[in-house]
Amino acid sequence: MLPKISQRIIQEPSAMDELLALSSQCQRISFAAGYPAAELFPKKELEEAFVHRSQASKDDLYQYASVAGYGPLRKKLATKAQTTGITDIDENNICLTQGAQQGISLLADLFLDVDDGVVVEGPSYIGAIQAFESRKPRFYEMEMLNDGPDLDQLEEIVSSHSVKIVYTIPTFQNPTGVCMSVAKRKRLARMAEKYNFLVIEDDPYRDLRYQGKDLPSIKSFDRTGNVVMLGSFSKILAPALRVGWLVADQEVLDLVNKLRSASDFQPSNVTLQMIDQFLEENSLSAHIQRLRQVYGRRAATMQAALEEYLPQGCSYSRPEGGFFIWVTLPQGLSAGKLLQDGRPVTFIESSQLYAASQRADQLRLNFTGVSEEQIREGCQLLGQAITKERWALTA
Amino acid sequence: MLPKISQRIIQEPSAMDELLALSSQCQRISFAAGYPAAELFPKKELEEAFVHRSQASKDDLYQYASVAGYGPLRKKLATKAQTTGITDIDENNICLTQGAQQGISLLADLFLDVDDGVVVEGPSYIGAIQAFESRKPRFYEMEMLNDGPDLDQLEEIVSSHSVKIVYTIPTFQNPTGVCMSVAKRKRLARMAEKYNFLVIEDDPYRDLRYQGKDLPSIKSFDRTGNVVMLGSFSKILAPALRVGWLVADQEVLDLVNKLRSASDFQPSNVTLQMIDQFLEENSLSAHIQRLRQVYGRRAATMQAALEEYLPQGCSYSRPEGGFFIWVTLPQGLSAGKLLQDGRPVTFIESSQLYAASQRADQLRLNFTGVSEEQIREGCQLLGQAITKERWALTA
Repeated sequence: MLPKISQRIIQEPSAMDELLALSSQCQRISFAAGYPAAELFPKKELEEAFVHRSQASKDDLYQYASVAGYGPLRKKLATKAQTTGITDIDENNICLTQGAQQGISLLADLFLDVDDGVVVEGPSYIGAIQAFESRKPRFYEMEMLNDGPDLDQLEEIVSSHSVKIVYTIPTFQNPTGVCMSVAKRKRLARMAEKYNFLVIEDDPYRDLRYQGKDLPSIKSFDRTGNVVMLGSFSKILAPALRVGWLVADQEVLDLVNKLRSASDFQPSNVTLQMIDQFLEENSLSAHIQRLRQVYGRRAATMQAALEEYLPQGCSYSRPEGGFFIWVTLPQGLSAGKLLQDGRPVTFIESSQLYAASQRADQLRLNFTGVSEEQIREGCQLLGQAITKERWALTA
Repeated sequence: MLPKISQRIIQEPSAMDELLALSSQCQRISFAAGYPAAELFPKKELEEAFVHRSQASKDDLYQYASVAGYGPLRKKLATKAQTTGITDIDENNICLTQGAQQGISLLADLFLDVDDGVVVEGPSYIGAIQAFESRKPRFYEMEMLNDGPDLDQLEEIVSSHSVKIVYTIPTFQNPTGVCMSVAKRKRLARMAEKYNFLVIEDDPYRDLRYQGKDLPSIKSFDRTGNVVMLGSFSKILAPALRVGWLVADQEVLDLVNKLRSASDFQPSNVTLQMIDQFLEENSLSAHIQRLRQVYGRRAATMQAALEEYLPQGCSYSRPEGGFFIWVTLPQGLSAGKLLQDGRPVTFIESSQLYAASQRADQLRLNFTGVSEEQIREGCQLLGQAITKERWALTA
């Protein structure tokens, strides 16, 4: 017989795996996964970058390296972080992680004991909820409004409960697509100072803006080291590289690096140097510009298709960037039920995206991993499914 | 002000980082790190493998993939595991990890709550001790004998204390070089059944045998799923790929995969497919054969040099494989003191390798990452340092 697993761990199938399974079970069109467009991966450039770097390097490309990751790449990312308004930053404020997911997980592990307080947006990113869940915290939720989470609600929570971490995706939030206003970004940084919590600013979609103007990061308003920003190459280069990064002040970074060393020792120098050489040989902004054009068209196509095909009573978000549109169904309808009927079209239904509450009448649609034709067809199928479900309900 | 970090986490500099720093501070010759020989990395073959696979693959090489890792590579590793005597195994019993270190860390996280019992060998691998330490367990030690850990001592521990995990490196143990006998391997598997603990069989050096005969794995004696075996490409291919694997029965594997998904989502499909293609195009055993020849010579050279240069009263292990020789100093001498004097030669001193007790009179020498010339010179320097230290002591 096995020993008992930790009291922290819940023995349920992973919601993330269910999500991936959902995409593969789909009969026709899947809006479920948060995949970037595979046809836009800079395959040839990455091949060349790797071969050049491997040939040019001594054998140390393949050897053990440092826990924080390849220095020159950290330097480039420090410069990139400056464009979000962060000053006083250099490569020593960067730690390269196995995707941004590892950043969330390390911070959760570093700060949380059982029953410690964590605030997330309602709804939020399922991977973050899972990373926190395995520490068995107390979850609180702040409702998503059109300009970001409800910070009055947050103030009530943190002034009456002990909260260690506030997790937010300020730019083109997953799943709602909402962008946090500058005023709220600043206020959140100030609240972190006042109430001594850590803000995890998860910002993987920042570069994928199709309309409007870039906003400063929450981290740029941080005066006390209470904000950690996470970035990722998954959405702007390729997910399979598994490279993200964490921007933090020294105290947090030292602790993260130590825990990371015990967790998986260090990142892959092979993929880090592949990326570093890619950045030397190519323009990342030119590549991102291409992504913006394609994804911007897909976002517009999905909005037009939803406008055309969704029955009355539905509403949906109009994000200025990112990967997702968020749909709210007419009263009484359940998004999960739409997934049970032959699954001509799949998506993520809302109930598993709320950590503390539950809402079953919303769904997340991804528009980056599908063609414009698929988007139109899928939205039509979705509209039909909703109409059918509504009839069933009133019948 | 930051929130308080978890009560599990100790705010000390990482021993692993100190270890790496030690190698770089070395004035002359470092036997400290456990590095493979950089000049033997199959650089050209890995470049070719990557380019071939990238060109042949559709764009899915760079896309999100599965949490357990690339299926065909898991299949190859299941076949490899069979050569250690494990039957009834297929790719569903394998999870690809970020080095074997991630396997240790995931199992620690999965099973351990604060104050749970963990037994390690005294001395043991520092990275494992750190992975367990961040769960704040109760450590127990089983003494290393010439044929593996003292299992009578283990039986006393597990019959009088609650122990969840027994961690062992049965083949060419890090740091002692000791190989566990077949009888002990079998007995340990039976004890795990009887006392309901999990055995973590960390086996990264198995293929690097320079003398003697391969032994069956502990996992091959497992009838109840209480043994998990860890393997790694770090020592037999290249550490910077950060690819290890975990062999487990379904129940443990499902739990590990779920936790892994929350921890860093999934491994890098890029490095996994690079390795898979390398294995398709090249003979891993031929490559390992080359490593064995070079490392076998280095091991022999180090033993001869220690025989020649170490003063009387020192003893050292004579491993049949692996990366390390373990030296015990004459009574009263401290290995740490030898490191303070200009550091002409560096190594890992024993005090940080004992999780529960402390012994300061031993040291670990690596022979794979240094040339035979460096080995001879370094052993001579070490002999001189010991002699000098002994004079200082008796003076």
